[in-house]
Amino acid sequence: MLTRVKSAVAGFMGGIMAGGASGERGNTGSELPLKFPYTRPQFLGLSSDEIECSADHIARPILILKETRRLPWATGYAEVINAGKSALNEDQACCEVVVARRRPMSYCPPSTPSKTPTAKRRNSLPNGEGLGILSIFNPLIDEFEGLVFHYWALFDGHAGSGAAVVASRLLQHHIACQLQAVIEILRNMSSPPPTVLGEEPDNNPYLQGNIPVPHRALTRAASLRGAAGAPGSPCNTPPPPRFFTEKKILHESLVIGAIENAFKEMDAQIEREKQGYCITGGCTALTVVYLLGKLYVGNAGDSRAIIIRSDEIIPMSTEFTPESERQRLQFLGFMQPHLLGNEFTHLEFPRRVQRKEVGKRMLYRDFTMNGWAYKTVEDEDLKFPLIYGEGKKARVLATIGVTRGLGDHDLKVHDSNIYIKPFLSCCPEVKVYNLMQYEHGADDVLVMGTDGLWDVLSNQEVAEAVTTFLANCDPDDVHRYTMAAQDLVMRARGVLRDRGWRITNERLGSGDDISVFIIPLMYGNRQP
Amino acid sequence: MLTRVKSAVAGFMGGIMAGGASGERGNTGSELPLKFPYTRPQFLGLSSDEIECSADHIARPILILKETRRLPWATGYAEVINAGKSALNEDQACCEVVVARRRPMSYCPPSTPSKTPTAKRRNSLPNGEGLGILSIFNPLIDEFEGLVFHYWALFDGHAGSGAAVVASRLLQHHIACQLQAVIEILRNMSSPPPTVLGEEPDNNPYLQGNIPVPHRALTRAASLRGAAGAPGSPCNTPPPPRFFTEKKILHESLVIGAIENAFKEMDAQIEREKQGYCITGGCTALTVVYLLGKLYVGNAGDSRAIIIRSDEIIPMSTEFTPESERQRLQFLGFMQPHLLGNEFTHLEFPRRVQRKEVGKRMLYRDFTMNGWAYKTVEDEDLKFPLIYGEGKKARVLATIGVTRGLGDHDLKVHDSNIYIKPFLSCCPEVKVYNLMQYEHGADDVLVMGTDGLWDVLSNQEVAEAVTTFLANCDPDDVHRYTMAAQDLVMRARGVLRDRGWRITNERLGSGDDISVFIIPLMYGNRQP
Repeated sequence: MLTRVKSAVAGFMGGIMAGGASGERGNTGSELPLKFPYTRPQFLGLSSDEIECSADHIARPILILKETRRLPWATGYAEVINAGKSALNEDQACCEVVVARRRPMSYCPPSTPSKTPTAKRRNSLPNGEGLGILSIFNPLIDEFEGLVFHYWALFDGHAGSGAAVVASRLLQHHIACQLQAVIEILRNMSSPPPTVLGEEPDNNPYLQGNIPVPHRALTRAASLRGAAGAPGSPCNTPPPPRFFTEKKILHESLVIGAIENAFKEMDAQIEREKQGYCITGGCTALTVVYLLGKLYVGNAGDSRAIIIRSDEIIPMSTEFTPESERQRLQFLGFMQPHLLGNEFTHLEFPRRVQRKEVGKRMLYRDFTMNGWAYKTVEDEDLKFPLIYGEGKKARVLATIGVTRGLGDHDLKVHDSNIYIKPFLSCCPEVKVYNLMQYEHGADDVLVMGTDGLWDVLSNQEVAEAVTTFLANCDPDDVHRYTMAAQDLVMRARGVLRDRGWRITNERLGSGDDISVFIIPLMYGNRQP
Repeated sequence: MLTRVKSAVAGFMGGIMAGGASGERGNTGSELPLKFPYTRPQFLGLSSDEIECSADHIARPILILKETRRLPWATGYAEVINAGKSALNEDQACCEVVVARRRPMSYCPPSTPSKTPTAKRRNSLPNGEGLGILSIFNPLIDEFEGLVFHYWALFDGHAGSGAAVVASRLLQHHIACQLQAVIEILRNMSSPPPTVLGEEPDNNPYLQGNIPVPHRALTRAASLRGAAGAPGSPCNTPPPPRFFTEKKILHESLVIGAIENAFKEMDAQIEREKQGYCITGGCTALTVVYLLGKLYVGNAGDSRAIIIRSDEIIPMSTEFTPESERQRLQFLGFMQPHLLGNEFTHLEFPRRVQRKEVGKRMLYRDFTMNGWAYKTVEDEDLKFPLIYGEGKKARVLATIGVTRGLGDHDLKVHDSNIYIKPFLSCCPEVKVYNLMQYEHGADDVLVMGTDGLWDVLSNQEVAEAVTTFLANCDPDDVHRYTMAAQDLVMRARGVLRDRGWRITNERLGSGDDISVFIIPLMYGNRQP
């Protein structure tokens, strides 16, 4: 994440190898041990020497899967390190087939998911077993009535690689853990999810589905509030409702909720484990979960996923940046001004205000506004704006350029006691794509990339590159998606020429870490 | 706004006529005088008797423009009263051509726009002068270097008609007032709006446009914050910036900002004037401003505007309801729990929680979530949910079904001291449509309607009805848009049959107040 976090913070680099990939304590400036050693994605199966060579900022070698290795669904993957902004590649990736085991009526303790692994992880690698072998019809799986999901994830670290490494190792367990509580419900698609668990449907009128509201509830004579046991009633216990509706919740909403809460638990775990381990920095997280015929794309940060289907581009994520989340952040700063430490203003100006401009009228924008207006400049407006800068240079509290992700619990404004974390959200936006509603061909893919890719290539350019590349490959070549990923990273990195990395039309290539998954969608059609 | 506000509040009906339209103090239960008497839109030019007849809840006559009257651009209008939910029609409408006069470097005092009318209003009615007569090429206008804008607005009142009547009379002045401060800037499209007013461009490097950022600002060596005079600097006065960028603000952003702030000022004025006048209830507001070739559609509430162009439907607004604004409201309740008065919980459940369910696991949704998950029910969860109900029956604090609008300053949860207003926003969303980018035909129109229309007819049904109707009219008939509006209101109200109002396919017609503008777009092409 190039120029994403100010230098003062970036100086603390987590998990830097001291000349090797052994993963002992790195150059972290911390006395605590690392939670996990720095490494590259496990599915690459790299040796220590290979990992060291991968960090060559001059050659910038593009790493792909070895020919002996395969990912589930023949997924393609490629990555390259940055051009020197950090010693290590702060991107991380994960791809696994995960089994969430049934644990009816139980609850995954949010505090210790990694200590009590109730989900059995079946890593499809390094032996290539994952490809089409596991399915929910596999008797082995049915035996313990678990749920299998496919999982792909990219993490883009900043201010150290610690959070990205931890998240790449553990987030899938949190998702499995959250799904455990609803396995039985998800497997029983014939009835809607019960509102309350552990009640006999016959004994509870609420569980009989949507009960029509009597007509008089629609008139002014009966207020909803009075009808359903309103606050302000004389007794504390609400009386049994006379009229009520019950929201019908879809099964897929439970998966979305599970992914949302898994991100939250992952973030909480990082915060807890920092008591005993050195976990530096923060990271964005982009995850794809394939479960029961649907893809769930969860995004917290500025990575991106798109589906390329025939000639169509379907965006599967939106980016969360100081500009896209400006109003949420300004609203928070307005409501909780102490978070601004008397040094920042929640108002936005087109540039810094100068003292000599006090009394003049200047353009501004408040949290309620999308337009701009003039206001008379006051002393208060001389404070630094909460959101400042444009495009890739926009920052929250002059510090960070991405507004959702994991970690960053210690991150402060330089030389102050103002924490950044209250303004960051660990909550992903989850979008759903039903794989069963379309018969996908061999060239229909989902592309996931960190911002290093999308900073220099548009959706359209990526789609054209992938479509063209795949059209020239043998459709039965299982390496075609790997090679397409390699081609994409090459196009975004460019070649070293004259004064820097150049891509087509003499544009500047990305000097950032770049990581790409290309997931063919036709494999999803082959499974229920 | 049918069943939008609980009965206890709706009892206070503002501006009810005591047998006539004279507009003296009505049956308001208040000792204060009315700010404005109840009436129907001025452009209808109705007599007292006609106004009284229009409130017939059995006949529900559809009101249209008299043949002798015309609105700017030959705009069509029709309205009908509700089927009995309130004594008066709580919808209000306004349509005018407004001139904002030049007042360079001055500032419209936000506190008294209605007392010091610095904008001269030229009502195009009742003499039909407005049609194509006023334009910014009109020497009369140029003389005082004003700006002309066309203005259409719908207001849907609840819990009384007071706020809707006041807003229908004054909001356009607030818009004119906000625009005054930027008239010169808007008229000078050749240079971008200055960041600061009253500075010589030559003396201020900031005013020379976007200054490129030196390359080193892109590297970690120079943080934006340090570069631009960061908080935490030893001196209080920020040093002159060394590197900076300046946001380039578009002219249309100033119009958007003016409309946004005009809504805010209108709401503040209602609050102030309630000290001396009886202004009951609240209202939604949907406004269309045509200025310098663009339409600006501002919406705060659940009315709707769409453009019908050839066979295309372009939504020009989104509705603000407890469901669409759930996360904003829950976030506020979470951050400022005192606003919930210890009686409400910010969590959402599919239905009310019963005491016997404490300890069981129930579906819930927090402000960060779009999906659902199970949580163990605690005593705290027995409180009434901040957002409750589904679709048209969804309510905030068990009271109100719309989350943006004007007024409602006194609105409280029944039998409590919990105010609703902190959860409501008076800020509109403003969408822009450039009329110059398309050559519009006689059948291309913008349709504005209160929720009474959209509750029973979809965008598609409205578009088909209007398109079909206009195709059967003489293109040169200036009454065609009025008749199309009448047809639309008829289709939404239906006919009285058997047990109620019925529309096509035996569906229920709308029992709500219904108001519709149909604005032909070709007139916009005829003006710069």
